[in-house]
Amino acid sequence: MPEIREDPLSGRLSLVAPERGRRPHDFQPLPETAETGPCPFCPGNEHLTPPELLRLTGPEGDWSVRVVPNKFAALVPGKADPPPSDLFVVLPGVGRHEVIIETPEHERALAELSPSQVLRVLEAFRQRKEAFQAEGWRYGLFFKNHGARAGASRRHSHSQVLALPFLPPLLKREFARLEEFRHRKGRCLFCEMVEKERREPRKILESENFLAAAAFAPRQPLETWILHKAHGRPFDTLEERELLEFAEVLLHLLRALNRIVPNLPYNFFLHLEPLKGPFPEDFHWHLELVPALTRVAGFEWGAEAYIVPVAPEEAAAWLREA
Amino acid sequence: MPEIREDPLSGRLSLVAPERGRRPHDFQPLPETAETGPCPFCPGNEHLTPPELLRLTGPEGDWSVRVVPNKFAALVPGKADPPPSDLFVVLPGVGRHEVIIETPEHERALAELSPSQVLRVLEAFRQRKEAFQAEGWRYGLFFKNHGARAGASRRHSHSQVLALPFLPPLLKREFARLEEFRHRKGRCLFCEMVEKERREPRKILESENFLAAAAFAPRQPLETWILHKAHGRPFDTLEERELLEFAEVLLHLLRALNRIVPNLPYNFFLHLEPLKGPFPEDFHWHLELVPALTRVAGFEWGAEAYIVPVAPEEAAAWLREA
Repeated sequence: MPEIREDPLSGRLSLVAPERGRRPHDFQPLPETAETGPCPFCPGNEHLTPPELLRLTGPEGDWSVRVVPNKFAALVPGKADPPPSDLFVVLPGVGRHEVIIETPEHERALAELSPSQVLRVLEAFRQRKEAFQAEGWRYGLFFKNHGARAGASRRHSHSQVLALPFLPPLLKREFARLEEFRHRKGRCLFCEMVEKERREPRKILESENFLAAAAFAPRQPLETWILHKAHGRPFDTLEERELLEFAEVLLHLLRALNRIVPNLPYNFFLHLEPLKGPFPEDFHWHLELVPALTRVAGFEWGAEAYIVPVAPEEAAAWLREA
Repeated sequence: MPEIREDPLSGRLSLVAPERGRRPHDFQPLPETAETGPCPFCPGNEHLTPPELLRLTGPEGDWSVRVVPNKFAALVPGKADPPPSDLFVVLPGVGRHEVIIETPEHERALAELSPSQVLRVLEAFRQRKEAFQAEGWRYGLFFKNHGARAGASRRHSHSQVLALPFLPPLLKREFARLEEFRHRKGRCLFCEMVEKERREPRKILESENFLAAAAFAPRQPLETWILHKAHGRPFDTLEERELLEFAEVLLHLLRALNRIVPNLPYNFFLHLEPLKGPFPEDFHWHLELVPALTRVAGFEWGAEAYIVPVAPEEAAAWLREA
């Protein structure tokens, strides 16, 4: 049974999942190897994945998106307990950990999909999120690792989704800061951020509902955020046309990034409202895209601050021109 | 001029240092290349480093440890200003960023040095820390990156030290949690941690003044902490024999880690009391060693929580046996 642990000192959380079965010899530094064996995400190999949780059909009637449990799940189904009040907090590692196979085509990256196919991926996530909500989980985290350097273990394009029994520490902090800003300034931090960023040299692209901008204080070079501009409109309330618009902005951004660094390895994640429990009205949902270009090293671990060798304003200029 | 920026949402800090002069073509994924050209850290090549800040002599009269400014400094000398009260906080990126050349021998890793040589490295750091204190900086961060996967750009054994005009976010959080624990329980969180860990299966090694244990909630497999057991004894007050004892514990740990993963890539850092400003009496200085074995990916960035595939208790058992 995996465990969720809270570091008594920093409040940082770890998911300790020894079922993943690593042994010392697994930790020899590995080259970025090619895959061997048949791809379990390809059509015809559906039997190689655990039983399907969701299937969306495409224009040709075959599947276009599949959701399956992660074979190496960091969290397993079960009942969430309230945390004990102790110095060393340990919770059972319950939740869900699933893979969204984004396309039947083995060689096609997310950046190369059509907007309507990306819309289907988002729809699949939204349906799983609804299922998580019905099951009573606290948070649904949607994220993607692209490229071996960014932690992707398979080349066939996929993203991941986790149903968590806790609110992620980063979101907890975001929420606290929104409340604090509202208290101090009487305004919405996100609305103010949108208003400022659309006039700043960090802006990359603006559509009716979204603003893509280089992150003001990035963790990696070329880090970019896509903000939903409208106040008080949780992800759950999005109409399909807005989701399609978001897919188009995301594709535009990914293609621009690929023109700067061909096949850029990257991670992105969605920060949405929680599945249950209160959250600040000022929260705007958004996507954060973090390229895998520099390494997290001693300074970053020790300070939780990041040394970034490119100014966001310069990154935005590259991306606007790309 | 580099800049220190505070993310309005999370409070996370970035050091934006465009002088490091990266361009898009610098970000092509790189293999872990061998070095070319003469090593600037080797004896005879002292002219290849910026002018020396500190030199310690060894038993043979030649230098044993040198401290030089980092050629690619993330912070530059200058005057620290108070932060403006704005949504987007930008501070001048002032501070110091230096390299400690830990040995004259090109091929000898820190783990292969003698305890007295490691003591000299710690002494060099302590002397630089005193200089930083005299200059009025807020925090002195000592850290090491070993191996290309852990962010080391040179093989010749070295560590780094930064004089920072701010308290690192992670320490700020540690301090807040110590105060909160004291307030809630009336006890020292660190003393309690030491008392518990010496009886837990996470314990690796205990000496008169130090306890090495696998981190309870690690960020990476095999993450290990060395805690100073004594209450109310800042790093500044250490006697030489205690520093030597610490060097011995560190060497023991590094050698055990290398027996599990030969030439393990790792980062470590010291968390000490700040150079100026108040800090909780309950703070015990400590070292955190974070191996570079798994990748920071979408989940870690998005949640600020970590998926770790090895239980700390198992890691401690490996390390005790190694």
